[in-house]
Amino acid sequence: MRLASWSWGGRPHAGVVSADGREVTPLALSNASRGVLEIVERLAQGEGLPREAGPRLPIDAVTLRAPLPRPRRNLFCIGRNYRAHAAELATTVFRESLPDKDAWPIVFTKFPETVVGPYDTVRLPSPSITTQIDYESELAVVIGRGGRDIARARAMDHVCGYTVVNDVSARDIQVRHQQWELGKGFDTFCPMGPCLVTADEVDGRDVRIRGWVTPRGGTPELRQDGRTRDMIFDIPTLIETCSRGITLLPGDIIATGTPSGVGMGFSPPKWLGPGDVFRVEIDGIGFIENRFEPG
Amino acid sequence: MRLASWSWGGRPHAGVVSADGREVTPLALSNASRGVLEIVERLAQGEGLPREAGPRLPIDAVTLRAPLPRPRRNLFCIGRNYRAHAAELATTVFRESLPDKDAWPIVFTKFPETVVGPYDTVRLPSPSITTQIDYESELAVVIGRGGRDIARARAMDHVCGYTVVNDVSARDIQVRHQQWELGKGFDTFCPMGPCLVTADEVDGRDVRIRGWVTPRGGTPELRQDGRTRDMIFDIPTLIETCSRGITLLPGDIIATGTPSGVGMGFSPPKWLGPGDVFRVEIDGIGFIENRFEPG
Repeated sequence: MRLASWSWGGRPHAGVVSADGREVTPLALSNASRGVLEIVERLAQGEGLPREAGPRLPIDAVTLRAPLPRPRRNLFCIGRNYRAHAAELATTVFRESLPDKDAWPIVFTKFPETVVGPYDTVRLPSPSITTQIDYESELAVVIGRGGRDIARARAMDHVCGYTVVNDVSARDIQVRHQQWELGKGFDTFCPMGPCLVTADEVDGRDVRIRGWVTPRGGTPELRQDGRTRDMIFDIPTLIETCSRGITLLPGDIIATGTPSGVGMGFSPPKWLGPGDVFRVEIDGIGFIENRFEPG
Repeated sequence: MRLASWSWGGRPHAGVVSADGREVTPLALSNASRGVLEIVERLAQGEGLPREAGPRLPIDAVTLRAPLPRPRRNLFCIGRNYRAHAAELATTVFRESLPDKDAWPIVFTKFPETVVGPYDTVRLPSPSITTQIDYESELAVVIGRGGRDIARARAMDHVCGYTVVNDVSARDIQVRHQQWELGKGFDTFCPMGPCLVTADEVDGRDVRIRGWVTPRGGTPELRQDGRTRDMIFDIPTLIETCSRGITLLPGDIIATGTPSGVGMGFSPPKWLGPGDVFRVEIDGIGFIENRFEPG
């Protein structure tokens, strides 16, 4: 099942996407401004979908929003979770944050207000604030049933489904403050979508992730091409780790880290600038495509 | 003015504390489960207080909650913001995260679900998860009027007021994952209160912060005694820094860092254990006092 959130007629709606991906049907929710959250909560409790609340609409007639447009707390994010990506960082300023062993994941967060829709514009802060804007194509896990101290062996029972994110990062800010929250946390720095695909339809443990830059006036250039089976810490391990002493809640999001090919891995680095477009696509889920503009 | 949030008759309330600190008066709010948030938002818009919604009650008759019991996103927190505290860390595992210059603050976050009331119990995770529990006595700034790219010179206009927090930290987890969110983010790891004191009544730029441990069955021992004027990065600088490219919202919280005297600064370190009580007091605001118990 594919769940989505959209604007139509000036109001927020959320519901299901048809099997052919061409239509959306709104469901009766008490607060559609939270996107599909209420649906995730119902499914987590073993309840069925809410009743339909209106006619099917062509998906092209609505404006898709992020499936979870305003998470109730910061998103969990994983750093350096693919070996090839870890290797490309070994020649950058991040070489000192690479552990000599892969014993424990790096976990940081992104503010809820970083989230924007799958085709929305990402706002570049002024060059006086940052000049090193980078992309990170990622699979995001959406938690269904909550829980604390979830064992790896049962972790997949807590997955509602998956979506696509771009963990946009300002590398100069990320480095300068040592902790990463500010450099990862600028408004609009987490495009998400186009929908949430439930775990019965796709297995996030092995999907292909690709990312393309289209420079302003140029043609698309494939920069990232990886598979989630190459994660250093797999999805069950990430859920076990994040839930140790911390109660995970329905609708929590874990962005699972990015494959190799980020801009800072090039020599010289290739930063994103005004008018550039970045597209992230995950097979079986869909794509997001976002233009970067001064804001 | 002192604003507080409490439970009474099995329901949440929020309102004002009398000048003598002995009584509370509930105000008419649309959602008192968010504590004083709605009051902060009204004040930020230049509106007056909501009408009174019931009789005054003795403060001893109610159960105080955190003034902001469930912030709408993670709390902003500042690391290593007092020189004497930075010095005490120079002999610990954190020596490598001490910059050779004090150019930029360290900013990390705590999950909203870390917040508990001023006299609530802090839940110690199982010793299989962490054995190095530490305290950090801190002044927390509550943002009133929101904004992005707030200049230092105007930053104090965005302060609604202040409250007291204990930034409880699991040092082993904090170090192990490099980024600090997990080690700072366990459920119940941010006791807060006893109230929010508005900025017209106290100036957070120079207040005295003290912290005491009372070991189980022992007597109180003063561990921390500092003044906020000794911060490396003062409150206006912190607001300027956190708002660069990130829109601050009414009710956002910035925990401003801790003075010297934390448990990990001792040799050998002095960790908190079951039955220990930690008290944080800030002159002009009040105190919080929390017992640590296995959970």
